[in-house]
Amino acid sequence: MNSQLKNELAKVCELIDTVIREDQFPESIEPESLKMAVKSYPSRGGKRLRPALLLWSCGAVGGNPEDALHAAAAVEVYHNWTLVHDDIIDCDEFRRGVPTSHVELRDYAKNKFALETEAAVKYGTDFAILAGDVQQSWAMDLLLRSAGKSVSVETAYALAVRMQTFLNRGLISGEALDVEFEYRPEQPARSEAAHMIDGKTGILLSYSAASGAMIGLNTPDHKHPYVEALGDYARSIGYAFQLCDDLLGVYGNEKSFGKPLCSDFREGKPTILAMEAYARLDESGREKLRSLRGKAPSADDVNMVRELLDSCGARQAVSDEANAVSMDAMKKLHTLPKNKYRDLLEELAVYLLSRNV
Amino acid sequence: MNSQLKNELAKVCELIDTVIREDQFPESIEPESLKMAVKSYPSRGGKRLRPALLLWSCGAVGGNPEDALHAAAAVEVYHNWTLVHDDIIDCDEFRRGVPTSHVELRDYAKNKFALETEAAVKYGTDFAILAGDVQQSWAMDLLLRSAGKSVSVETAYALAVRMQTFLNRGLISGEALDVEFEYRPEQPARSEAAHMIDGKTGILLSYSAASGAMIGLNTPDHKHPYVEALGDYARSIGYAFQLCDDLLGVYGNEKSFGKPLCSDFREGKPTILAMEAYARLDESGREKLRSLRGKAPSADDVNMVRELLDSCGARQAVSDEANAVSMDAMKKLHTLPKNKYRDLLEELAVYLLSRNV
Repeated sequence: MNSQLKNELAKVCELIDTVIREDQFPESIEPESLKMAVKSYPSRGGKRLRPALLLWSCGAVGGNPEDALHAAAAVEVYHNWTLVHDDIIDCDEFRRGVPTSHVELRDYAKNKFALETEAAVKYGTDFAILAGDVQQSWAMDLLLRSAGKSVSVETAYALAVRMQTFLNRGLISGEALDVEFEYRPEQPARSEAAHMIDGKTGILLSYSAASGAMIGLNTPDHKHPYVEALGDYARSIGYAFQLCDDLLGVYGNEKSFGKPLCSDFREGKPTILAMEAYARLDESGREKLRSLRGKAPSADDVNMVRELLDSCGARQAVSDEANAVSMDAMKKLHTLPKNKYRDLLEELAVYLLSRNV
Repeated sequence: MNSQLKNELAKVCELIDTVIREDQFPESIEPESLKMAVKSYPSRGGKRLRPALLLWSCGAVGGNPEDALHAAAAVEVYHNWTLVHDDIIDCDEFRRGVPTSHVELRDYAKNKFALETEAAVKYGTDFAILAGDVQQSWAMDLLLRSAGKSVSVETAYALAVRMQTFLNRGLISGEALDVEFEYRPEQPARSEAAHMIDGKTGILLSYSAASGAMIGLNTPDHKHPYVEALGDYARSIGYAFQLCDDLLGVYGNEKSFGKPLCSDFREGKPTILAMEAYARLDESGREKLRSLRGKAPSADDVNMVRELLDSCGARQAVSDEANAVSMDAMKKLHTLPKNKYRDLLEELAVYLLSRNV
């Protein structure tokens, strides 16, 4: 990573950590376990990618990123509440090596009330549902507090409307589609899979960048050309990032990727890479891919997948698409005047997509 | 019920049914099952008590209730999302004789994807979590649409802030306390039980009435004397209603009450009535009440509870408190100028509390 980008990302983390840590919203929550759960994910740190997009988009249109601090914390807390509910739905026990929210709450209840496992699991899930419910509201409250001396109530109001009409429905529809795909007997169409990915990742990135621009311009108009350009840029890099992730899941380094190679194929996930391969392979090739479902892939399996995806052209097609989408993102960015923050957004895109293989 | 009150309540139901039915917010939700679940509770009808409080409070301060229609639908949808998540948490299968949201979704998945019971239950719960998440946002969106020709953006913005800072945390803390009481080895203090009841029921009623008044006055000031008076009035009738409910649960008519008498004692619920009784009875009386836990009370059991609560004075104390709280609510109402809507609010309180025994 470019050292300026690294420094500026570290600054964002510090700013957002402080806003979240010092925010009084969770303090009146009862009982203690719910308050703890509401604060848990937001105070765990992380890359703070969405706040960075928001703050730098504010700067890119000539605004002062300091005016956007509460909104930047809002998109981070928003991201977190969706993770708390997703982790319940996906039955995930760990998030970056630390217990997920419902597991933290389960263990709390087990100790505090000496519960049997089943009762503790129920307590953990119930309280994690409620924790996400409060976090959605906390995010909204932070967002509304964007209004101030440089940001009008009209602008903050427009951000709030858009959090419902653009962000919430799109993101949760994406999550619901992802869940439903597992139950459907047939694979989704490629366009539907792309739409799901956009909902799950692109929409919040787009909302973050567009909100930063609206704050920087102090405008309630989400159709302002700079607002649209930054929203489109962020949405595109979200999609390109996902395509790179598909490729890294097969061709990457298991250690740096963080999970076993080819796990998408083991789980039968309808990734764009898998769909591209199924569309290009003949029946015997498809059968080979299908044979990976439900088993831990061996080194030979990984080599087999790599050869199949290379030979049918799926790897190249997805790589080409990732590059085309990134180029498109950069073009959107270049409709803005050049300044330090536009450069940072460009560097960020390069960094996120440089993992391309 | 007074016939004017009945007619006016029917009008509210019709208005709110129409706003909810015609609202476009849920239309873009995917997949179909999530859209269906988001619309389910809000379109089931019901008393529409919270919208009535909101619309009539708007009228009571001299405003035009038509300006408050979206906000009235908002508090109803808000109530509904909390019910969807509560029903998951309480494992309730029916709500007024109709399957709860997670059960509707479970049955949908069972048919649509030919799932085994366990997988269908998981789908039902997961989708009901997501449905409540979208409904919280739908409520917020409806509320924000209060801004219009008679209601300023500043007023709508203030309503939105208060939905987070006053309503969400208070209501969900109440729900979480209610859940946690079941796990605690010791009974909560009376003040904590009262606080839980206020969170679960009083806060949304108060928010509804206060919001109607803010819209009617077109003020962002929730400390305006009329706004405070109406908020306090609604909060008090919520509490008095709950006390009456405790009494009806023992002394009422099982058929009109809708669930078996003394079920609070069977479930060991820390109602105000039960706490009043435990505080007044000697150890042998307490032991008699405790003996009801976990078993279906017989007619003799019901008579035994009635005699105990009569003789120790708990019934009288709770009845006196309900009356005192109602009187207090009426006093608040009488700080407002007399008009048709103030009369309706008064009639509503009389009706809700006339079930007193």
